[in-house]
Amino acid sequence: MKNEVFVGEGMKHVKEDCPELYESIVKLNNAVYSGKVLDYKAQKLIAIGIAASTGDEKSTKKQMKSGMAELDITKDEICDVLNVVLLTSGMPAFTKAMKILYEL
Amino acid sequence: MKNEVFVGEGMKHVKEDCPELYESIVKLNNAVYSGKVLDYKAQKLIAIGIAASTGDEKSTKKQMKSGMAELDITKDEICDVLNVVLLTSGMPAFTKAMKILYEL
Amino acid sequence: MKNEVFVGEGMKHVKEDCPELYESIVKLNNAVYSGKVLDYKAQKLIAIGIAASTGDEKSTKKQMKSGMAELDITKDEICDVLNVVLLTSGMPAFTKAMKILYEL
Amino acid sequence: MKNEVFVGEGMKHVKEDCPELYESIVKLNNAVYSGKVLDYKAQKLIAIGIAASTGDEKSTKKQMKSGMAELDITKDEICDVLNVVLLTSGMPAFTKAMKILYEL
Amino acid sequence: MKNEVFVGEGMKHVKEDCPELYESIVKLNNAVYSGKVLDYKAQKLIAIGIAASTGDEKSTKKQMKSGMAELDITKDEICDVLNVVLLTSGMPAFTKAMKILYEL
Amino acid sequence: MKNEVFVGEGMKHVKEDCPELYESIVKLNNAVYSGKVLDYKAQKLIAIGIAASTGDEKSTKKQMKSGMAELDITKDEICDVLNVVLLTSGMPAFTKAMKILYEL
Repeated sequence: MKNEVFVGEGMKHVKEDCPELYESIVKLNNAVYSGKVLDYKAQKLIAIGIAASTGDEKSTKKQMKSGMAELDITKDEICDVLNVVLLTSGMPAFTKAMKILYEL
Repeated sequence: MKNEVFVGEGMKHVKEDCPELYESIVKLNNAVYSGKVLDYKAQKLIAIGIAASTGDEKSTKKQMKSGMAELDITKDEICDVLNVVLLTSGMPAFTKAMKILYEL
Repeated sequence: MKNEVFVGEGMKHVKEDCPELYESIVKLNNAVYSGKVLDYKAQKLIAIGIAASTGDEKSTKKQMKSGMAELDITKDEICDVLNVVLLTSGMPAFTKAMKILYEL
Repeated sequence: MKNEVFVGEGMKHVKEDCPELYESIVKLNNAVYSGKVLDYKAQKLIAIGIAASTGDEKSTKKQMKSGMAELDITKDEICDVLNVVLLTSGMPAFTKAMKILYEL
Repeated sequence: MKNEVFVGEGMKHVKEDCPELYESIVKLNNAVYSGKVLDYKAQKLIAIGIAASTGDEKSTKKQMKSGMAELDITKDEICDVLNVVLLTSGMPAFTKAMKILYEL
Repeated sequence: MKNEVFVGEGMKHVKEDCPELYESIVKLNNAVYSGKVLDYKAQKLIAIGIAASTGDEKSTKKQMKSGMAELDITKDEICDVLNVVLLTSGMPAFTKAMKILYEL
């Protein structure tokens, strides 16, 4: 649970080559997503918004996919997230993320 | 309602000098924050996360303040938002936003 | 006219699924590009510079292409834009945009 | 001429302590702003747009001031630049730059 | 040792209010700065370069100060770091960081 | 020597079409990498860190490759650089750069 971010190629090598660093990342990840008041889904929507606002296609796609698979986040919910991205971060970030969403 | 972003000095001049642009921004702002499925508060938390992830102190403070004043967002909720910022955007963005939060 | 930014995949879905949002974006786009004093071409050159300065290859390419197709912007003009990108945003953003320009 | 960017505190120390680096920056600055086809004013407007799109208040102010002092760039022209910033980079960058413009 | 980043106001509140998160950050910080091959000073110079390249004045100043106080990093060494910032991230980031350096 | 950054497609066209600009970039590049106190390898590690922190895959790969080919920088050294990226710039930038490193 909550470990979807560790699936990528990059983290596999961290686990093998830098076990202490890997362990500290797992620990931080768990602490971060154990929100005091917000549930995991609310935090995941925020993570999707932040990823999309940077225009980073890979992490946007990864966050969207894991949110939909793990937490049953819907396309309409992500749409509402991306609207905020449009206002705060401009058209290029918004259109890139919308395209990613509709290709999932 | 939902028009807190227009309070700043910058927008005042837009309203006076570029009424057509101002009107289109108001329209966009309303469309953005009329989420299909997410409520305004959920979208506001995303806006706070995006502002904090960029390290922009002014817009982070403005988003936090309007979220707390208009939507009764609590410090604990913002804390949970900032935890996501720590993981996705690193320590400097996180510590700056934490400092802003505790000075409010 | 001036609607080249709406051609992409992302915006197609916005038009279908969120007609009100789509309409407000069109309205904003028109207001933005109806400059009081600068003509559309001058504003387009600025949009190309901003896209290139972020290192975002997709939006840089899209802006360059629409500028050349719609407004007869030349490669030499874009070169002069990218020189400013070099000074303000550094070598990686500059070389990526130069490569895109010469592949068009 | 065209050397307004060198007025700041930072560059003074470069000139004194790293004369070779300083000389190469001056040379680059001159090459950049000797556009083949665009004039200096068109390039300056692009520099203002790029500075504003990053949300960097100091360089935005510096670029605006030198553009107005050296090249008689008007507030209306900068307004048209900032409209592009709104569309490409979002509200926070736009409102910050508008506020700076009206305080000049 | 190596805990200079925890001195700021922001982290004080994390320690009090979110002890588990705080502990995981300390653990990560230690894992990060226990380089396999690079020493702490080499890593600190990289942290200064990254902070300066983002144009974030607060974290740039904090990283420079702690590097000079803890690790006897000299102004000349930071100058060599900032030269890399100039090439990779452009003039505004460079001049801001040079100004900060000479005010320390 | 030290001219690895000029190998890309983008710079080839600069050399042909804008010889004066090209010459000034070469001059700046040489001045930047003639550190007063830091050697070229230390500066290269900083350039790798800055490239990775921006999440720019192309320039990250280019910097890593030239550092390994020209200066015998090892994967373990780059790993120590990327740890700093994790702390300062967050998980997405870190995992992307780790993946690039292990694919080289």
